[in-house]
Amino acid sequence: MRYGAMFGPNITFLGIPECDYSDSKSYQDADVVIIGAPFDGGTSHRSGARLGPSAIRGTDYLPHDGSRPHLATRMDALKDIVVKDAGDVEMFSGDITKSCDALEKVIEKIAKDKKIPLILGGDHTVTWPNATGVAKAIGWGKIAVLHFDAHADTGDITFGSLIGHGQPMRRLIESGAVKGNKFFQIGLRGYWPPEDVLKWMAQQEMRSYEMSEIVSRGFDVVLDEVIKESIKDVEGIFLSVDIDVVDPGSAPGTGTPEPGGLTSRQLLDAVRKISVELPVVGMDIVEVAPAYDHAEITALLANRIVLEVLSGIALRKKNLQTGQVFNYSQSLLNDR
Amino acid sequence: MRYGAMFGPNITFLGIPECDYSDSKSYQDADVVIIGAPFDGGTSHRSGARLGPSAIRGTDYLPHDGSRPHLATRMDALKDIVVKDAGDVEMFSGDITKSCDALEKVIEKIAKDKKIPLILGGDHTVTWPNATGVAKAIGWGKIAVLHFDAHADTGDITFGSLIGHGQPMRRLIESGAVKGNKFFQIGLRGYWPPEDVLKWMAQQEMRSYEMSEIVSRGFDVVLDEVIKESIKDVEGIFLSVDIDVVDPGSAPGTGTPEPGGLTSRQLLDAVRKISVELPVVGMDIVEVAPAYDHAEITALLANRIVLEVLSGIALRKKNLQTGQVFNYSQSLLNDR
Amino acid sequence: MRYGAMFGPNITFLGIPECDYSDSKSYQDADVVIIGAPFDGGTSHRSGARLGPSAIRGTDYLPHDGSRPHLATRMDALKDIVVKDAGDVEMFSGDITKSCDALEKVIEKIAKDKKIPLILGGDHTVTWPNATGVAKAIGWGKIAVLHFDAHADTGDITFGSLIGHGQPMRRLIESGAVKGNKFFQIGLRGYWPPEDVLKWMAQQEMRSYEMSEIVSRGFDVVLDEVIKESIKDVEGIFLSVDIDVVDPGSAPGTGTPEPGGLTSRQLLDAVRKISVELPVVGMDIVEVAPAYDHAEITALLANRIVLEVLSGIALRKKNLQTGQVFNYSQSLLNDR
Amino acid sequence: MRYGAMFGPNITFLGIPECDYSDSKSYQDADVVIIGAPFDGGTSHRSGARLGPSAIRGTDYLPHDGSRPHLATRMDALKDIVVKDAGDVEMFSGDITKSCDALEKVIEKIAKDKKIPLILGGDHTVTWPNATGVAKAIGWGKIAVLHFDAHADTGDITFGSLIGHGQPMRRLIESGAVKGNKFFQIGLRGYWPPEDVLKWMAQQEMRSYEMSEIVSRGFDVVLDEVIKESIKDVEGIFLSVDIDVVDPGSAPGTGTPEPGGLTSRQLLDAVRKISVELPVVGMDIVEVAPAYDHAEITALLANRIVLEVLSGIALRKKNLQTGQVFNYSQSLLNDR
Amino acid sequence: MRYGAMFGPNITFLGIPECDYSDSKSYQDADVVIIGAPFDGGTSHRSGARLGPSAIRGTDYLPHDGSRPHLATRMDALKDIVVKDAGDVEMFSGDITKSCDALEKVIEKIAKDKKIPLILGGDHTVTWPNATGVAKAIGWGKIAVLHFDAHADTGDITFGSLIGHGQPMRRLIESGAVKGNKFFQIGLRGYWPPEDVLKWMAQQEMRSYEMSEIVSRGFDVVLDEVIKESIKDVEGIFLSVDIDVVDPGSAPGTGTPEPGGLTSRQLLDAVRKISVELPVVGMDIVEVAPAYDHAEITALLANRIVLEVLSGIALRKKNLQTGQVFNYSQSLLNDR
Amino acid sequence: MRYGAMFGPNITFLGIPECDYSDSKSYQDADVVIIGAPFDGGTSHRSGARLGPSAIRGTDYLPHDGSRPHLATRMDALKDIVVKDAGDVEMFSGDITKSCDALEKVIEKIAKDKKIPLILGGDHTVTWPNATGVAKAIGWGKIAVLHFDAHADTGDITFGSLIGHGQPMRRLIESGAVKGNKFFQIGLRGYWPPEDVLKWMAQQEMRSYEMSEIVSRGFDVVLDEVIKESIKDVEGIFLSVDIDVVDPGSAPGTGTPEPGGLTSRQLLDAVRKISVELPVVGMDIVEVAPAYDHAEITALLANRIVLEVLSGIALRKKNLQTGQVFNYSQSLLNDR
Repeated sequence: MRYGAMFGPNITFLGIPECDYSDSKSYQDADVVIIGAPFDGGTSHRSGARLGPSAIRGTDYLPHDGSRPHLATRMDALKDIVVKDAGDVEMFSGDITKSCDALEKVIEKIAKDKKIPLILGGDHTVTWPNATGVAKAIGWGKIAVLHFDAHADTGDITFGSLIGHGQPMRRLIESGAVKGNKFFQIGLRGYWPPEDVLKWMAQQEMRSYEMSEIVSRGFDVVLDEVIKESIKDVEGIFLSVDIDVVDPGSAPGTGTPEPGGLTSRQLLDAVRKISVELPVVGMDIVEVAPAYDHAEITALLANRIVLEVLSGIALRKKNLQTGQVFNYSQSLLNDR
Repeated sequence: MRYGAMFGPNITFLGIPECDYSDSKSYQDADVVIIGAPFDGGTSHRSGARLGPSAIRGTDYLPHDGSRPHLATRMDALKDIVVKDAGDVEMFSGDITKSCDALEKVIEKIAKDKKIPLILGGDHTVTWPNATGVAKAIGWGKIAVLHFDAHADTGDITFGSLIGHGQPMRRLIESGAVKGNKFFQIGLRGYWPPEDVLKWMAQQEMRSYEMSEIVSRGFDVVLDEVIKESIKDVEGIFLSVDIDVVDPGSAPGTGTPEPGGLTSRQLLDAVRKISVELPVVGMDIVEVAPAYDHAEITALLANRIVLEVLSGIALRKKNLQTGQVFNYSQSLLNDR
Repeated sequence: MRYGAMFGPNITFLGIPECDYSDSKSYQDADVVIIGAPFDGGTSHRSGARLGPSAIRGTDYLPHDGSRPHLATRMDALKDIVVKDAGDVEMFSGDITKSCDALEKVIEKIAKDKKIPLILGGDHTVTWPNATGVAKAIGWGKIAVLHFDAHADTGDITFGSLIGHGQPMRRLIESGAVKGNKFFQIGLRGYWPPEDVLKWMAQQEMRSYEMSEIVSRGFDVVLDEVIKESIKDVEGIFLSVDIDVVDPGSAPGTGTPEPGGLTSRQLLDAVRKISVELPVVGMDIVEVAPAYDHAEITALLANRIVLEVLSGIALRKKNLQTGQVFNYSQSLLNDR
Repeated sequence: MRYGAMFGPNITFLGIPECDYSDSKSYQDADVVIIGAPFDGGTSHRSGARLGPSAIRGTDYLPHDGSRPHLATRMDALKDIVVKDAGDVEMFSGDITKSCDALEKVIEKIAKDKKIPLILGGDHTVTWPNATGVAKAIGWGKIAVLHFDAHADTGDITFGSLIGHGQPMRRLIESGAVKGNKFFQIGLRGYWPPEDVLKWMAQQEMRSYEMSEIVSRGFDVVLDEVIKESIKDVEGIFLSVDIDVVDPGSAPGTGTPEPGGLTSRQLLDAVRKISVELPVVGMDIVEVAPAYDHAEITALLANRIVLEVLSGIALRKKNLQTGQVFNYSQSLLNDR
Repeated sequence: MRYGAMFGPNITFLGIPECDYSDSKSYQDADVVIIGAPFDGGTSHRSGARLGPSAIRGTDYLPHDGSRPHLATRMDALKDIVVKDAGDVEMFSGDITKSCDALEKVIEKIAKDKKIPLILGGDHTVTWPNATGVAKAIGWGKIAVLHFDAHADTGDITFGSLIGHGQPMRRLIESGAVKGNKFFQIGLRGYWPPEDVLKWMAQQEMRSYEMSEIVSRGFDVVLDEVIKESIKDVEGIFLSVDIDVVDPGSAPGTGTPEPGGLTSRQLLDAVRKISVELPVVGMDIVEVAPAYDHAEITALLANRIVLEVLSGIALRKKNLQTGQVFNYSQSLLNDR
Repeated sequence: MRYGAMFGPNITFLGIPECDYSDSKSYQDADVVIIGAPFDGGTSHRSGARLGPSAIRGTDYLPHDGSRPHLATRMDALKDIVVKDAGDVEMFSGDITKSCDALEKVIEKIAKDKKIPLILGGDHTVTWPNATGVAKAIGWGKIAVLHFDAHADTGDITFGSLIGHGQPMRRLIESGAVKGNKFFQIGLRGYWPPEDVLKWMAQQEMRSYEMSEIVSRGFDVVLDEVIKESIKDVEGIFLSVDIDVVDPGSAPGTGTPEPGGLTSRQLLDAVRKISVELPVVGMDIVEVAPAYDHAEITALLANRIVLEVLSGIALRKKNLQTGQVFNYSQSLLNDR
């Protein structure tokens, strides 16, 4: 019994085949299973991210035909690997505990079935059940989290709740699902968190790259360092992308926009590179709030982040099979 | 310890004095106490109503000086009676049970202190704690609810929850806080609820005026009937205004807009009339979602609904003291 | 081979079952067949109506579950009759002749199969093939057109083309598909057409109700006159609703908004009444341009116009079977 | 030396011929001269009305061809009378005194040349120079002002200035340009002005129709009363239309929107009727602020208000010449 | 007989003098002739580009006075060379064949008259007639196309049509108007075209620079390569700029936005450099869709792209006359 | 007697304590005093900047609690130094002379009290009184102005006025308040000013960095040069930031957006660096026009520019006390 869509028409990501997360057979041929987490009960300010999954699935000017040949790598992420869409998990925004629990169970099941769960948020609260579910399947404390975000999301109790979109990373470290020194945060900036939280983060040996450091050292240098360090001592990578890591000019449709972020180009190239070079075992893209978007540019960016990761996963699979190495500066478009 | 604002700057409704709901003395001179209920965890579709309280308080092109002389009645609602703003109740949208409980306690306390609580929502979930709190103070089953809305809000379990913005009226009747035959719903339309819920409503002897009936019989006729019937056998009136009762053209900033509603003029005149002619003991204005608003026209309408009610309450108080009766067609502006 | 959606995800109107217009068996049990006409090549100013079909199908805050119990009539239009969605006809906006021809063939086929075609436009050009197709099936010159619009759409050559969104009514009369004196236009206003076109219209004995006449005589009076006159000497009614008949405040999302129109309430009640009292054999709803909409209120209004018509058709069918007559002012919600 | 446009391209109202206000010969054949007053230095809250003239001139989906055949009256306001566009008066918003002085001189000159000045504002400050200029030409204290507005605009010193968009009516009465008892205000509502200003207004014997009175007595009744009373003892009528008299749903693009206003239909019909039945000697349409508009619906409404007035003036001229009387309920569209 | 504007007021680009494309004498003194191509019948998804020409011509906060002194080069593009505006070509969007034919004839005529045609689109369909017309004048197969775009636009039949905004480049190569190896595409990205089209492109020896290659090798390196290679074996350069080459954050007002594009700074500098260093014989700027724009930033960007090219052309002319070479890092603003 | 807010609720910048500029004692413990200058009477095109102060003060998703720990520097700008908010100066936009005079007096007083005035504009007119007031306190001709802007703002009489948002820099140099060779302009671009103004600027020995020069030489190189040169021979730095220096994609909410600007990241890092390395004695942030903003991203950027400067001032104070030097590439977040 597939749940389908919590809000709006029952569509799949760009027209890919659907599956049912309660029925392992329905996705047994899949490499990646997409799941919607339409939840925004954990946001600390503007809500709206619950409509993220439908926006990310449905936007695009190209036909919804289950094919997306990638211009730079010549992989077709929706054909060269098998990607299925399991629909949404029902997540009532008014009950954060129950909703997170429901989501975690689904993610754990999919990950235990050896599929890569790719979650469309929803607010960042969902990374707590997402990464927990994956860790339960891959190994407790045996995954690294690569975390693109303007915010560290390592807060403690907020509005009287231990759970929320500002706290998932703390919960993951406290539970042991992810070790503090396997957290790599890219794109942080602004005026949060306060000193005590920073101290806690340092104690956990988290590695956080603030934008000024990134500008000063160079984005490529930082990214290479993350790629090299993150894979040590773990079985896989969980990639968590908060759309607000990108500058609000290119990603206005989000709840807590923080000026001065990455360009969309930087993020798109980075997530693809990570997916090619590291074993991604789970991913989420969160905090797309369509009510604040303009001309769907934020939803479209999130849609492309998913496609870049899928293209990267497809290329990695091919490279592993063929032993090839991809050279980005080589122009695949013009070889004769 | 006044909680203040859950989101954004700590402002009061149009600059009126603040008070602290935990301290009865701070509002002992008040006729009406305004409370923000910044909650949208109960919405079944678009969220965003949590930012309603700050929008309703802060919009207006006139000075925020705690004075609003009403042109039609010549009452100054913010001066002729005492209105204070108690700030927001902390309502984490991710925990609907706890949030409703917190709100109910505040409302009950204020009502028991013989003040009229006027709640700025938030989604319509909040009417459950609001009217419950008032009923506990005024008399269980001894208030009538005058309910302006496009939707009956009498649903049962939704997304696995008994509580939500589509269910407050059922909860109130089931608990006995309000008797079914003391519910008067004005402005209903559209394609909800289904047959079983309609049957339940009829069993409760609720009185619901659908828009086609209102058009057919005339709005004034219907309103007079409601005013006459509602006051029988009760100690006071709870007025609940869902902004979506107004046509989406004049109130686009809401979560579940239903075309074909009242004009804003009809609603403004109606709530004032009710407040003059009936003993309002509590009120809420809900479902203003600023993210979907344009040029603040919805927030401004909600702000004016509050002012019309306050003006009506002030006029009623004066009329009761002086024995005067107000004649709307008499032009107060031109008497010499 | 169902064509599906020309733009965006392949969804049906509010989740009703799909059918294939090239396969009569797929819709043989249907009363009404919905078809998308995603075309805006005929617009004389702002384009954008090609995205109307997907917007009208997909908007709504209620579940897309193929059920819409109508509050005023207690009919469930999507259950009490059978409504299927045949998807879009491919209509390349750059080739108006070919696109209209393709659409006409589909409409004619469905009408000949004794189903009511209900077309989601697209710009008003599509009424030419729509009504032509229906006339070919029902009887050439044997249908009346009830036409809600701000504009008469009786122009001649525009931008060098005989076909366009300002000319469908002239084409229909010139071809004989519809007789001039069986055209009833409601809601006209503004500053078009010029004298020569008005003269032509008078010669055709078209009946056009300008807004000032409607205000002066009363909307109900005018509507009753139209209902009484239109049915004489014809086999059925084609209902054509241009969303711009409604005031731009409630329907901003359109290409040629003309201030001073009907209220959405008036239109919703009118189309339902027509569908109950007259034998509707075809319908289109046109000129919804989502790019100019705000908070989806125009798309939602169009969606409701479709639902009111379907509810009316369902009620008419029931009334014909049972001999009942519906009384709008009788409160169905409150009978016990 | 025609000044042309203060902001943006140098266009005329819907493509009519241009003239130069400094050169009487350039408009000697005109009945009406349009002048832009691109000023918003007098606004008490949101600015933006300086871009009103260009928006009102340039909006419209019909060709800018200097022809607008009016559907209800069959007059072509841009052809049956001569209307010319004199461009903008340079009005630096930072110098209200100098700007008003410059505007007044232009209006006085045009009115003395026996042309009807029709001013596109700009904020409502401009009615002070506009009506002053007309009174200087027609007769000091010998014009009536018909004033459609949500606000009385009779304030005294604001932000330290005697001049501003909340004060023009007081200035006009104080100077004697217009007698207090020749002021007729329609559509007032809300919570301004305070008691002392109301008292001053009553002393001046101004006649103000608040919305509740209008609803209670009927718009037609009130309008007929205004038409009958205003013309007594004056030589002509100055019509001043603040777009905010219309409900914000249909006119969001303005600086101080006040919910609960007239419908656009009511206003369009009213200004046409006034122009047919009374000798309009000057007119302004003010407070259109494009930055707050959506899909140009407010600018379009203002454009149509101008066209209705021009159509009315044309019809009045024809009626005076022919002795005909226009019957609104007579359907000009269908006579054979 | 100048056609003027197809939509809206008849304005010229920033107030430059008008000319008539049917009358060579009217532009015989011009270096560049601007033509509007208000067509969007070829778009594969969102329409709206037909309003591009009026938006590009009319936007700007500076006076429309026919002067634009360029800060970096100290050329005044509208004065140092002669630029005239021929108005729009009538292009009914519903008839792509006829519209393209009409446009091509105009462009060919202007190019044969030795003027540089500069076309304001319109969707990208128009590059087919544009470059064809120029090639007929300059030499069949003797121009290179420098093509800034997110998309290759080399598709074959789409929606049953050979012509459309995704196919112009294929049509140009197939006809021989432009040789495949003289196509230089900059800024491509995303998930189109599919493999067969890529193969065809490689066969034609097109040179396409995908964004990842551009980032990897450096934009300046790539641009220098294009400048060096493109000029070989041709008589002139046709520059085609699709606004969607820029990141959607800075150019949201377009039909098919693809995240991850160039910055507006990169594009502005690039088109100027090209215009200085290469003999541009024709240019178009396409795909500006105002309905999706915000605060006119996309229209303004397109306006500036035109001005940068014109400034470059002016500088090239001066350099050719004087033998000077421009040094961008030399600060012209501060020399003493 | 604190004036408070000219428009809307009386809030302080992010909840910091208020003070009264007429009462020196109220801010005697402050390092920085924030003042609102809600004026847009000087704008040459779009108005709206008068609502800048309230937008900049009130935006932010974080609690308005008077604390903002800076992630990169670990300073809390609102706690480590004392910042107070003096509210707005009353500046009627219709009287530029009086308004500038009032503002100048306030700024001079605060600067003479040895506090750093930080002014929230308002249009750029206000820099004339701002820098004049500071120069009167610090030393006539003894401050340098670091001016981030798309425009030079060195115009002469405009719309008949010597004062306006395009002229403040000329006025400052002409009066001698700032020497021409102590003006450093960063980010200029576009097509203004004309030759005669450029000549005047060169005569004054102003130093202006156009965007092409900045791209060509590198932003860091240019910034270092400015930092080194500006401090020579002066007593302090006045920092004036026009939000339009940033690309319109990231700062759409402004009156005269000019494509091709700095990234928000570049600006944020630059103003912080300046504040750390130079003695800032006054600052203004201007031209934020909320009516043109989207999702508050421009207001948020301006808010962050203020916070970066305050963080820099706090760090400079600490560095001066401790002798430390800050290293941006050193990761403060991860030290253990």
